[in-house]
Amino acid sequence: MDQEPLDTHTGIGIVGAGLVGCLAALAFAKKGYVVSLFDMRADPRTLDRSQKNLRSINLAVSDRGIRALKSVDEEMASRVLEHIIPMKGRMIHDRDGGCESQVYGLFGECINSIDRAYLNECLLQEVRQADVRVFFDHKLKSVRNLDSLPMLTFSTLGGEEKTFEFDYAIGADGAFSQFRYQMQRSMRMSFSQQFIDMQYLELYIPPKPQATCEADKVEIRDHIHSSGTPGDHDELSGQFQMDPGHLHIWPRHDYMLIALPNKDGSFTSTFFSPWKVIESFKTDDEFVAFFWANFPDATKLMGEEHLRSAYHENPRGSLMQVDCFPYNNHRAIIIGDAAHAMVPFYGQGMNCGFEDVRVLMETIQQCSGDIQDAFAKFSESRRDDLVAICQLAMDNYTEMSSKVVSPLYLMRKKFDYFLGKYGHYVGVSWLPLYTMVSFRHDIPYSQAISTERRQQRILRGVQTACFAGFFGYGVLRALEYWNRR
Amino acid sequence: MDQEPLDTHTGIGIVGAGLVGCLAALAFAKKGYVVSLFDMRADPRTLDRSQKNLRSINLAVSDRGIRALKSVDEEMASRVLEHIIPMKGRMIHDRDGGCESQVYGLFGECINSIDRAYLNECLLQEVRQADVRVFFDHKLKSVRNLDSLPMLTFSTLGGEEKTFEFDYAIGADGAFSQFRYQMQRSMRMSFSQQFIDMQYLELYIPPKPQATCEADKVEIRDHIHSSGTPGDHDELSGQFQMDPGHLHIWPRHDYMLIALPNKDGSFTSTFFSPWKVIESFKTDDEFVAFFWANFPDATKLMGEEHLRSAYHENPRGSLMQVDCFPYNNHRAIIIGDAAHAMVPFYGQGMNCGFEDVRVLMETIQQCSGDIQDAFAKFSESRRDDLVAICQLAMDNYTEMSSKVVSPLYLMRKKFDYFLGKYGHYVGVSWLPLYTMVSFRHDIPYSQAISTERRQQRILRGVQTACFAGFFGYGVLRALEYWNRR
Repeated sequence: MDQEPLDTHTGIGIVGAGLVGCLAALAFAKKGYVVSLFDMRADPRTLDRSQKNLRSINLAVSDRGIRALKSVDEEMASRVLEHIIPMKGRMIHDRDGGCESQVYGLFGECINSIDRAYLNECLLQEVRQADVRVFFDHKLKSVRNLDSLPMLTFSTLGGEEKTFEFDYAIGADGAFSQFRYQMQRSMRMSFSQQFIDMQYLELYIPPKPQATCEADKVEIRDHIHSSGTPGDHDELSGQFQMDPGHLHIWPRHDYMLIALPNKDGSFTSTFFSPWKVIESFKTDDEFVAFFWANFPDATKLMGEEHLRSAYHENPRGSLMQVDCFPYNNHRAIIIGDAAHAMVPFYGQGMNCGFEDVRVLMETIQQCSGDIQDAFAKFSESRRDDLVAICQLAMDNYTEMSSKVVSPLYLMRKKFDYFLGKYGHYVGVSWLPLYTMVSFRHDIPYSQAISTERRQQRILRGVQTACFAGFFGYGVLRALEYWNRR
Repeated sequence: MDQEPLDTHTGIGIVGAGLVGCLAALAFAKKGYVVSLFDMRADPRTLDRSQKNLRSINLAVSDRGIRALKSVDEEMASRVLEHIIPMKGRMIHDRDGGCESQVYGLFGECINSIDRAYLNECLLQEVRQADVRVFFDHKLKSVRNLDSLPMLTFSTLGGEEKTFEFDYAIGADGAFSQFRYQMQRSMRMSFSQQFIDMQYLELYIPPKPQATCEADKVEIRDHIHSSGTPGDHDELSGQFQMDPGHLHIWPRHDYMLIALPNKDGSFTSTFFSPWKVIESFKTDDEFVAFFWANFPDATKLMGEEHLRSAYHENPRGSLMQVDCFPYNNHRAIIIGDAAHAMVPFYGQGMNCGFEDVRVLMETIQQCSGDIQDAFAKFSESRRDDLVAICQLAMDNYTEMSSKVVSPLYLMRKKFDYFLGKYGHYVGVSWLPLYTMVSFRHDIPYSQAISTERRQQRILRGVQTACFAGFFGYGVLRALEYWNRR
């Protein structure tokens, strides 16, 4: 039947040289496997900047991602994470230009901003040095033979088809995974993709044209150093127009603007709104007027010209959630967005994908190197955590866009902070949900949710007790009053 | 960019020459549109029987399907439906070989058994005569340009790629629709496919080897005639081993067997079970023993030899539900299983697909021939009905496999039958759900569900009233008793 040329490789074939695919390639290579990594895109080294797919919402690396990188190779992790910018909290911007900082961690823990394309290039660099065979311009056409030796067929630039044979195959080719689609043809995989009614439009806040005073520069540099990030931050090539130590949010309920710092002093900003909002603007004038009315401080920093060109030229992205199960079929598995694309509102998409790699490698070790067995175990054991984080990501839009300015939310946050920080002195173990998800790589996502549910029940108990106390006190005072009459 | 040969057709391009695709082609051709119909399979006329894809669970045509066929062309409908075998009810087989008939309709209405491959061939024959251009061996590769003139690219047998341009494009290429997959690339379509833990294995009950007595033959022939089916039924080429006027069911809760009659005196039978059941049989002996224990009468009719060969050779099918929304994008739309594959337990898959065609054509007429507008309106207005029937199909497994032998269910069925048949004499409008779905093409699926919900509320009210009455009566009698003491 198969008359295509067959290039027989043993070892591991990985499809998708994005963040998760690269880390998986590194992980297997470090363990001594022969690894081949394929991507449909061109080698980024052969492209100039304008040709690159600069997909963003800047990424926020947090503990799970860092632990996963380190689990593969400590030194590689240091090199890759050299240029992250720590953010210790959210900076909430109101309509009048007022700001309020809300710290993320109990003890100054930070999440870390990094440019997606830059991080990808760092990882590709590591992959090349790890002696992984990398094939760019290879577009996956079919995945077959998963129950014996997986055969991957690609079409190459010249229109030629090439077929490779591997011991095991891994799909890490993103939310619209062709690998997953091909796997589905030979197995019973339940699958759903759900678009949410929300677009994102990427915007840009440039660095300060020049340093206004030397003090500013030093202050910003100090912030970055004091956050304890490894690496060299002295080469700040620009100056930030806002505090780079925060993830900036302009929460406006139905829509919101966010901004994350870049190394060059700029911010990558993203405008999220329902499609009907952005589509209601008939001209760039209306768009700019909307920005002046809702995000005056940001509009000033971005400049009207930029907003006008972004309105006309920047692509509007859609947001999708992918869920499927199982993730494996015999000698193949999907990981990262291919298995569980989530909306970006918890900043965990990449962190979770990296964690997939760590958990998978640990599972292989537990299975004494029986990779097929490990694929099956990973699929079963990872399921609940992946469902949990996808749900958290979906729910967190409400938190970011609305709750962060609600008095009740702020009260709960203070309560969390207080109990989380000082509770252990009085024997109370309390962990804010955000801390568990972003700063505690040792707590699985599903356990974070169940712990949070328990804490919520306790809180409701406390509220009821407080209410009962006040009510009882009131009744007593009333009785006293009547007695005295 | 596009350097492929472009074969410019105007008119309607339809992908998938299955049941729904053929009917859609006929419907548009009758209205005077230029229609091209594509299928990846070979022309069935060029294949011998062993090469044909004889996918089955025999189909049951009911009112919606018949109405849709007639809405396209009354005479065509008569020709196509010539060889259906009416089934007036379910025949429930218990483990001891006992049988009980449960009629479907209030007034003897029937659903009608027909072989899928045969029906498809009839429709293809009609398509050819309707002067539709039919392209077999055309495998869809891409769907583009939906917002101006849809371009469909196919690969043909020789490996050549051909691109066609149409005014409008319709995907009717089944549950694993490539057309849908291609559409998804250029739009935000939410989508889910859900496998249920259930396999099906096709079995076969042969005709009687020869007529045992002439009386039997006449009785069977009479049954078919008295059901008022058009066409020639005198050429019964065989004899049935069971009553052909019923859909036979062996309900055993976790698993079940069904059988539908064929024109040649045989029955196509299907064994449904969770995967773990069929996979638990290590040998054909165990499989046959299971059949003797659970379906002794059917086993006798099938013969051990057939069961053994079916166990080893017949493919085991999986059952999947597909849901997506919206169904349209600019000048393209998906219909039938491509848009809403359902599990087979309500016998409505094909009927619903045919109804798609009727509703779509009516919507085009309402939109004064603006097809793009009609696609959008169809998608919106058809949504609730499609969700409703998919849910009913899923729920009906429990009814077929378990409830049909439950006393409560049978009581409810009698109540339904009585009120449905005689209620109108006392001003009560009552319609059993099965009647609304299968015999009332004028009631949309979603309305059938809402009517049934209302009826269930009334039933619960009646139950409560009965209970209160009995209780009150008991209390009165108790009081009387105490008074007398």
